[in-house]
Amino acid sequence: MLDFTFCSPTQFYFGRDTQYKAGALCAAYGRKALLHYGGGSVIKSGLLDAVKRSLESAGVAWVELGGVQPNPRDTLVYEGIRLCKREGVDVVLAVGGGSVIDSAKAIAAGIKYDGDFWDLYSHKATMTDILPLGVILTLPAAGSEASNSSVVTKEADQLKRFCDSELMRPKFSILNPELTFTLPPFQTACGCVDMMAHVMERYFTNTPEVEVTDRMSEGIMRAIMKYAKILMKNPEDYDARANVMWAGSVAHCDVLGVGRQQDWSTHMMEHELSGLYDVAHGAGLAVMFPAFLKYQLPFRVQRVAQFAVRVFDVSMDFEKPERTALEGIRRLEAYYREIGMPTSFKEINAKEEDIEFMAGKCLLNNGDTLGHFHPLTRKEIAEVYRLACQ
Amino acid sequence: MLDFTFCSPTQFYFGRDTQYKAGALCAAYGRKALLHYGGGSVIKSGLLDAVKRSLESAGVAWVELGGVQPNPRDTLVYEGIRLCKREGVDVVLAVGGGSVIDSAKAIAAGIKYDGDFWDLYSHKATMTDILPLGVILTLPAAGSEASNSSVVTKEADQLKRFCDSELMRPKFSILNPELTFTLPPFQTACGCVDMMAHVMERYFTNTPEVEVTDRMSEGIMRAIMKYAKILMKNPEDYDARANVMWAGSVAHCDVLGVGRQQDWSTHMMEHELSGLYDVAHGAGLAVMFPAFLKYQLPFRVQRVAQFAVRVFDVSMDFEKPERTALEGIRRLEAYYREIGMPTSFKEINAKEEDIEFMAGKCLLNNGDTLGHFHPLTRKEIAEVYRLACQ
Repeated sequence: MLDFTFCSPTQFYFGRDTQYKAGALCAAYGRKALLHYGGGSVIKSGLLDAVKRSLESAGVAWVELGGVQPNPRDTLVYEGIRLCKREGVDVVLAVGGGSVIDSAKAIAAGIKYDGDFWDLYSHKATMTDILPLGVILTLPAAGSEASNSSVVTKEADQLKRFCDSELMRPKFSILNPELTFTLPPFQTACGCVDMMAHVMERYFTNTPEVEVTDRMSEGIMRAIMKYAKILMKNPEDYDARANVMWAGSVAHCDVLGVGRQQDWSTHMMEHELSGLYDVAHGAGLAVMFPAFLKYQLPFRVQRVAQFAVRVFDVSMDFEKPERTALEGIRRLEAYYREIGMPTSFKEINAKEEDIEFMAGKCLLNNGDTLGHFHPLTRKEIAEVYRLACQ
Repeated sequence: MLDFTFCSPTQFYFGRDTQYKAGALCAAYGRKALLHYGGGSVIKSGLLDAVKRSLESAGVAWVELGGVQPNPRDTLVYEGIRLCKREGVDVVLAVGGGSVIDSAKAIAAGIKYDGDFWDLYSHKATMTDILPLGVILTLPAAGSEASNSSVVTKEADQLKRFCDSELMRPKFSILNPELTFTLPPFQTACGCVDMMAHVMERYFTNTPEVEVTDRMSEGIMRAIMKYAKILMKNPEDYDARANVMWAGSVAHCDVLGVGRQQDWSTHMMEHELSGLYDVAHGAGLAVMFPAFLKYQLPFRVQRVAQFAVRVFDVSMDFEKPERTALEGIRRLEAYYREIGMPTSFKEINAKEEDIEFMAGKCLLNNGDTLGHFHPLTRKEIAEVYRLACQ
């Protein structure tokens, strides 16, 4: 087990009607909020109006900035920073899913950074201050409501880059499972794939003897899969929504990732995929993760076999553990398909001829290899992409 | 799943040599610390001297108060409060295990409470302020380094009572597994039983559909049991110490307890046991938990069977699930014995004739019944104690 520091200072307000706390919570951090959101769903559902009433009754003024797109863009972040500076905003309130929260994090950090906020995402500068950030979550998936990180896409060259800093953890996150009842099955499934991936990218490690976090990770994966299946049939099952919502936060707050080397190469490879084709992040992950594991299998048989046995109840083949490992990957793929996810390039209209381009971009600013589990050279990244074509 | 709020703001510093951070961390909260500890082990090991040097080099003055006993007493808390007020202490640093931390929490709260600190433990008053508290953990068990609670014994009438408040969570906790290498097997085992109990008292719930926390809880229990066994043979196994240490914090920070009704009756019944006989808390829990489950079995067969199947790999008997449940309890008892724990009254010199007295004390200020799983009347509490005699 490796040394670590860990702190998850976010205050979670979980359950029914918690969105009405937003005003009072913002008031603790200032008198003027940026209300940041995406498309029409938070307007249509009445959530945005409810939040405004809550801010009003708490004596908090606000300015609005909607229009966050999936894979949030730097252009809107620049607009948000200008707006907040002009209006003297004290606190940023994100109402939405991971894209909205990530965009809000970039704005909150950008306001306090004396220069181009992209410096923080291209790792040219380190964050030293940030505006207080609150969240009302409407799409459990990215875990950004509980995490220290944010991903933004540079529109000009479709470069998707992340920034992490403990300062980026939200001050508070409001999680009301009822707000997710109207999510369509595809988005629900994408969210569950994303949170599963957040667990798996911590789970597939070379650090020995991390059974405490291993076992908890295996447990949360089983639970996510159970409830995702229930939601495909009954999207208004409160308990299933609640379990999935809390799982998303636990999966990415890093309580399961401490003390171990992590491998985020699948997320990186997926970022290039969704950057190029604008495919949903979760769908891209469902395509990439089985391919990643197939490529890794010969190098790390025992760990993939452990995953197969403990998460998918595969019988251990003690003579040929690779059979066990492979059966685990097969069941993971079958599970993805069961909840309506794609598992190959052609289902998401990705093109084999773009593979070399994407493989190259994965390594841009990232050194000679990607990840740690079995580190991937450019040639090997292309191999993984090719496995995803099948 | 129930509504909840959750925040674990404690900053954990985990790993080798982390004790040397104590001075700098205290300096962030003030210029004078109370150095609070127990017996001679932290002196003999040189830890206390190392901490003093760290404080000194960070420019933090200190006053000392040692002598905390297992089941910490109100009398020393009063002494600590007087000392801190007289000396103008800004921050309390606990160096030790759960008893030292609980005593430190009481002192930190007592300094800021205008009245008798016991009011907070007898629930006559609510805490509104507390002095900043830091921890250097030397005995992973109670989870107090990560929890919002503290237990203190009123010496005059041996009344053991708890206090919980979010204010009681430490500002920082330093966890160096190497500091626990010298713990004797008995204390190590007691610690593991205690943290297992913290998980089980959250796990045995009537709240349906809490699979995310259920599965993680089952996972952490398996991991604790694995590493406790390793430590019985090799007390200097760093990874086993590290896993156990982190498990103790996770087990009691409540990330596994959110959204569910919890049942702390076993801890309450044990408190009467260790209050009366001064038996080690973990040993008392090893005696009480199997008895508790045996009594609960007829009322909650399915959940005890789930525990048996998922934590102890018992085959499910679909015709007679109670057989499965009972086999799970049998394996829990066998496990306790394997790591040298007592599982009956006579092994800890507890007396059957004290049962009625203890059962009565359990309900003092606690209403007509104890716990929630199947709530226990006074008569039923006595039944549970009697099951522990066998």
